[in-house]
Amino acid sequence: MITCNGNFAKLRASYLFSEIAARVSSFESGNPDRPPIKLGIGDVTRPLTDAAVQGLHAAADEMARAETFRGYGPEQGYRFLREAIVRRDFASRGAAIDPDEVFVSDGAKCDTGNFQELFAVDTVVAVPDPVYPVYVDTNVMAGRTGTWSNGRYDGLHYMAATPENGFVPPPPDQPVDLLYLCFPNNPTGATATAEQLQAYVDYARDAGALILFDAAYAEFIRDDSIPRSIFELPGAERCAVEFRSFSKTAGFTGLRCAYTVVPRAVAVADGSGGTVPLWDLWMRRQATKFNGASYPIQRAAAEMYGERGSAEIRELSDYYLANATIIRSAMEKLGFPCTGGINSPYVWIDGGRPSWDFFDDLLNRAGVVVTPGAGFGPAGEGFIRISAFNDRDRVEEAMDRISTSLA
Amino acid sequence: MITCNGNFAKLRASYLFSEIAARVSSFESGNPDRPPIKLGIGDVTRPLTDAAVQGLHAAADEMARAETFRGYGPEQGYRFLREAIVRRDFASRGAAIDPDEVFVSDGAKCDTGNFQELFAVDTVVAVPDPVYPVYVDTNVMAGRTGTWSNGRYDGLHYMAATPENGFVPPPPDQPVDLLYLCFPNNPTGATATAEQLQAYVDYARDAGALILFDAAYAEFIRDDSIPRSIFELPGAERCAVEFRSFSKTAGFTGLRCAYTVVPRAVAVADGSGGTVPLWDLWMRRQATKFNGASYPIQRAAAEMYGERGSAEIRELSDYYLANATIIRSAMEKLGFPCTGGINSPYVWIDGGRPSWDFFDDLLNRAGVVVTPGAGFGPAGEGFIRISAFNDRDRVEEAMDRISTSLA
Repeated sequence: MITCNGNFAKLRASYLFSEIAARVSSFESGNPDRPPIKLGIGDVTRPLTDAAVQGLHAAADEMARAETFRGYGPEQGYRFLREAIVRRDFASRGAAIDPDEVFVSDGAKCDTGNFQELFAVDTVVAVPDPVYPVYVDTNVMAGRTGTWSNGRYDGLHYMAATPENGFVPPPPDQPVDLLYLCFPNNPTGATATAEQLQAYVDYARDAGALILFDAAYAEFIRDDSIPRSIFELPGAERCAVEFRSFSKTAGFTGLRCAYTVVPRAVAVADGSGGTVPLWDLWMRRQATKFNGASYPIQRAAAEMYGERGSAEIRELSDYYLANATIIRSAMEKLGFPCTGGINSPYVWIDGGRPSWDFFDDLLNRAGVVVTPGAGFGPAGEGFIRISAFNDRDRVEEAMDRISTSLA
Repeated sequence: MITCNGNFAKLRASYLFSEIAARVSSFESGNPDRPPIKLGIGDVTRPLTDAAVQGLHAAADEMARAETFRGYGPEQGYRFLREAIVRRDFASRGAAIDPDEVFVSDGAKCDTGNFQELFAVDTVVAVPDPVYPVYVDTNVMAGRTGTWSNGRYDGLHYMAATPENGFVPPPPDQPVDLLYLCFPNNPTGATATAEQLQAYVDYARDAGALILFDAAYAEFIRDDSIPRSIFELPGAERCAVEFRSFSKTAGFTGLRCAYTVVPRAVAVADGSGGTVPLWDLWMRRQATKFNGASYPIQRAAAEMYGERGSAEIRELSDYYLANATIIRSAMEKLGFPCTGGINSPYVWIDGGRPSWDFFDDLLNRAGVVVTPGAGFGPAGEGFIRISAFNDRDRVEEAMDRISTSLA
């Protein structure tokens, strides 16, 4: 009988969101007149902007006429979009990225999940703790870990983000091959300074390691001294890959569009004493297993780089950042130490008690759903994450409820 | 230094389409006044239908309003689409498929490429020859083959489609774990009868093997005795997975939408003496590495199941089938034995000479671009594939040119 990939059995059941759903459901049936406000999940609630909607309509009309119809597009994405990306997201920040180094896709989750396919099974992987589960689970599936115990997988190197290191862990104190980094961080909301990122780049250059830099929340950075892209740091173009997304800032979670930057200068060992350009490997992977992102969606994404679209993105991210400020202020006023919520849509709150206890308090006393930090890894124990992705009036009411019930 | 997945080095450079491009480019520079007609690539040329375009516009308008905006959708796809799929594509054919067994995605290329992740590295894989390269290349990348020589990879079992077996090879004469089948076939255009498919199902049930059935061209079947779905055959619900696509029949190559059916009853060995539902593995894979297909595209796909959309799909596939008839008639009139072009958009032609020689003849004498069969595998040597995916006037002119130059 055909046998499954045995590594799947090592995966811990995705307990976090199902457990949240179960507790919320139980609360709802006991409190039918008190619908909870959900600030747990990182999904946007504001509609698409005018520029994006206009892009979708224009593309639909093009697809309706033989003269302007587009069939299969380039696996790497349309050049008009890749050029706009380079202009606004990199050239304007002094990062020398070529449009040929940009790969448009249908999601940063897919790209961060698929990228590990390019490496040997015995690659030593470092991940943050707390961590976005995709980095971990995809390496488990690929056989790069042992079994799970106490919230961690054997064989992975965890970089704990703690109050002591300001939630920006230093580079590993041992050799690793592949490092996942995420700044502004999900779930902690922490950002990394140029010096902190440079330390990672220097580490990777010394160790011959590769950094997979998840910058899905870069658009929320307002402090101009904080790098938006790792390619603002010298040397990163030889040791890093960056993932970006239109999901949160342009409201594209339902449209699906993202991109990955793989510089031509990054080389990896070929296992026979030579090296191979990483770009060649990713191009081959994408050309074999992907057929390009949807044309109307790429068209809408490109609209976000025009004058109107850029202003709308700013307005939309300002809206969620103002929510984050309301959340952070309210929680600090109640005496809870907070990280994030500045240059980031997530607020990471030290509850001074086990994560699930604080989750239960907020649900049962205030009718507000948050995310228990322990669900993201052992270093998240004691914390909760509150997401700024909701409508203003819901966020204000949630904070009123929390302030009243915990005061 | 981080080391790459060494299996990538086994991949043969994708020689076929780059070699075609090089020869066409050379022809074009030598014949600036004689632009060639391209019947090589399987991409559609007709615009989207009214129902699809209306679906895109309606979805864009929904996404523009907070009340109807949709963020992250279900990884498995929206239920309204999965229910429509089951009704028209399966229930109407007597195949008992549940909407929960349907997984909507952004392409059959992704799904056929990704599905092998669910299995052990030492899985024994059988593929057709000639073959759609994705089945092979993704297994090479996963380490299930040796090196390439004489057009084949060591460690793969090839099922040769030849004139002797009517281009429908019998099931393997040795035990294999995983079989890739494609009917109507790309590239041969051959279809399989219920008896032939039943033989595969029986083989798989006996051997404990799994069939990955690529039915991307099912919509072109006009003969009602030919199964459109493998789930029309008894027992298939315990040993098969089916891939379908909106690309060719609804003109969605640029929109990106497809689906995969994984019956709940399929179980695979867990490597420890037990079994595990295949459905659980694919759900876990998709939930970890995929965030669902784009909402506007799913909305457009659902429109294709309405009364108007169904009629349009029929009209569109009739159009390409009429092209196929023109191609097949012209080639048969010239004395070439043909397969396909009936219940299929591809015509597979025995040129009585090496594939590339015939390719050159047709390019240089008639100014028509086809695909050399040898590019799909050694059993394709001596054949060419002509695609019906072009506009009627182009197909007619191409066949006139060929008839005149070869007569």
